[in-house]
Amino acid sequence: VSASAGASGEAYLREIREQPELLARLADRGGEFASVAAEIRRHGWRTIRMVGHGSSDNAATYGVYSFGLLAGLTALRDSISLSVYYGAEIDLSDSCVLALSQSGRTPDVVEYVERARRRGTFTIAVTNDADSPLAAYADAVLALGAGEEHAVAATKTYTAQVAALLLLSAHVGGDGARYGDALHATAAALRDVLPGLEQRLTAVAAALADIDRMLVLGRGPEFATAREVALKLLETCRIGAMALTATDLAHGPVAALDPLFPVWAIAPSDASLPAVSEAVARASAAGATVIASGAAAERLAGASVAIALPDAPLPLLSPLVSIVPGQLLAGALAHARGLDPDHPRGLQKVTIVP
Amino acid sequence: VSASAGASGEAYLREIREQPELLARLADRGGEFASVAAEIRRHGWRTIRMVGHGSSDNAATYGVYSFGLLAGLTALRDSISLSVYYGAEIDLSDSCVLALSQSGRTPDVVEYVERARRRGTFTIAVTNDADSPLAAYADAVLALGAGEEHAVAATKTYTAQVAALLLLSAHVGGDGARYGDALHATAAALRDVLPGLEQRLTAVAAALADIDRMLVLGRGPEFATAREVALKLLETCRIGAMALTATDLAHGPVAALDPLFPVWAIAPSDASLPAVSEAVARASAAGATVIASGAAAERLAGASVAIALPDAPLPLLSPLVSIVPGQLLAGALAHARGLDPDHPRGLQKVTIVP
Repeated sequence: VSASAGASGEAYLREIREQPELLARLADRGGEFASVAAEIRRHGWRTIRMVGHGSSDNAATYGVYSFGLLAGLTALRDSISLSVYYGAEIDLSDSCVLALSQSGRTPDVVEYVERARRRGTFTIAVTNDADSPLAAYADAVLALGAGEEHAVAATKTYTAQVAALLLLSAHVGGDGARYGDALHATAAALRDVLPGLEQRLTAVAAALADIDRMLVLGRGPEFATAREVALKLLETCRIGAMALTATDLAHGPVAALDPLFPVWAIAPSDASLPAVSEAVARASAAGATVIASGAAAERLAGASVAIALPDAPLPLLSPLVSIVPGQLLAGALAHARGLDPDHPRGLQKVTIVP
Repeated sequence: VSASAGASGEAYLREIREQPELLARLADRGGEFASVAAEIRRHGWRTIRMVGHGSSDNAATYGVYSFGLLAGLTALRDSISLSVYYGAEIDLSDSCVLALSQSGRTPDVVEYVERARRRGTFTIAVTNDADSPLAAYADAVLALGAGEEHAVAATKTYTAQVAALLLLSAHVGGDGARYGDALHATAAALRDVLPGLEQRLTAVAAALADIDRMLVLGRGPEFATAREVALKLLETCRIGAMALTATDLAHGPVAALDPLFPVWAIAPSDASLPAVSEAVARASAAGATVIASGAAAERLAGASVAIALPDAPLPLLSPLVSIVPGQLLAGALAHARGLDPDHPRGLQKVTIVP
């Protein structure tokens, strides 16, 4: 039996548990992030074009906020197809590229980077494999150092990407040391709460075992968390999950909710809380079951379940903690449904002929 | 009985049917788009910051491609919360703002525009209400002229927004007249195929009546269509639907598919077709039911159902046609499930206590 083959969901859970240690290791590597940040500052690029798929793209959603708030830069999740499939010739003179790929082998991400480099654009790879083609092509490499990820559903590489984006943004904004310290504190807080969260989410998952649909609600930096939780629920539990901002939920989709269509709401203690709170109140008034998770979870009127999380030392750190209950929910729910997040099973084909 | 109160889904279907005429009317208003485009060209802004919620945000997804391909500009779906909730001070000197709101009354979109204007940024409103607060605040207004939208689920205002973004992008790129003509031709083609599509989608919906989850697949400009179809399915049918790019589907979520978790794949005749085709083949090999829709629908091996659409006169016009089968599917599926897209019903509250 190899290290990656164990009981159902064993690798997935082990990799969730590795996250505090991984965040602490990244916090110790401030110098590497400072060096890439210095390059961005020196050239004065105002636009960071981020590219990635799946969990990497969800991490990039976080980068929109971290670069915007800490460095005053426009960071955007760029369209890969615009360049790779359609050959668009967009002015890149004010941009650098930040490519996110756990494996460093996602073909169209690698091709996007090659094309950008050929046009003289500075490219940064954020990858878990410093020997990958992506790392070889990029001008600068920020290695995640997360160790091999055995479960098919990504967990630790997602949080490592978020932490890497945070550190890079903070160093560009001249506040790297403070955020490095805050990352250490966050890692310690996460280590403390993990065992309790594992128990709690197992109980929550048992109550949700028959759910086939879920909306995941987040605003601001936590929209990244919402997208990643929705993807985990899809990948590991076959749940039809959609991530929505608080405002998007309140306008229209709230009417779609029913008792078997619950809402997972991420509730940080930040300026987005009133919008999240209003959306939860509307979802609850509409009859939906709401599970709230976050530092402000207990302050949301109308939530059926509140999963309280510690306050992050600085607001932008909270997505590193609030993703964990979602990861644990997906794992526990997969287990309750007889699915294996480590090894998705094969499927049977049927045909409909209308 | 008022004009808006009729049989279940009557307004929704009527508004879908109004779309060809509406597109033709927009095609006649090239001068208005040329005038706003001239402003963008004169100032040389390289970044278009688009903001909107729900269907408006889905239309903005299209704008990323139309501005990128036709005008070589970076158009991005900007974070509203970054500015409105968190007060981020991002450099806007190279940007103009394009705000999309059917009603022109979405509070945080209006506030985003106010803030941008106070910082001296040129703002453009794309709205169905030229007397709205959004129109009043903006420097320039592009009215959709879609007439009042009675159904809660947006249809004609979405296609009008897409057409408006196309016309504006084409005029910025100096090719407005050609795209105006192509829009006329597209309107005529859509008028021709609509009756047949209504019949076809009623049959498809009957076969899908028990579905609670769906993945919607699109790449490039059709990713906007995929997002909008997923939102329609959620809003009108309570389906847990997620939009994915072809590449995102193939990496991970494909394993989540089962016979009751079908894929709606949008298949245009453009450079993204090989990626869509590969994703459909993988979904089909994994046992999923695939419904393909688009000009290249019949060229996708593995699709259980192919809904062929006419070739668009120019590739960027195809999303104006390919959204329609999705709108019709949502309406017919709602009807088959006893739901009303015009008037979402109230809901009952339940509580879970894990």
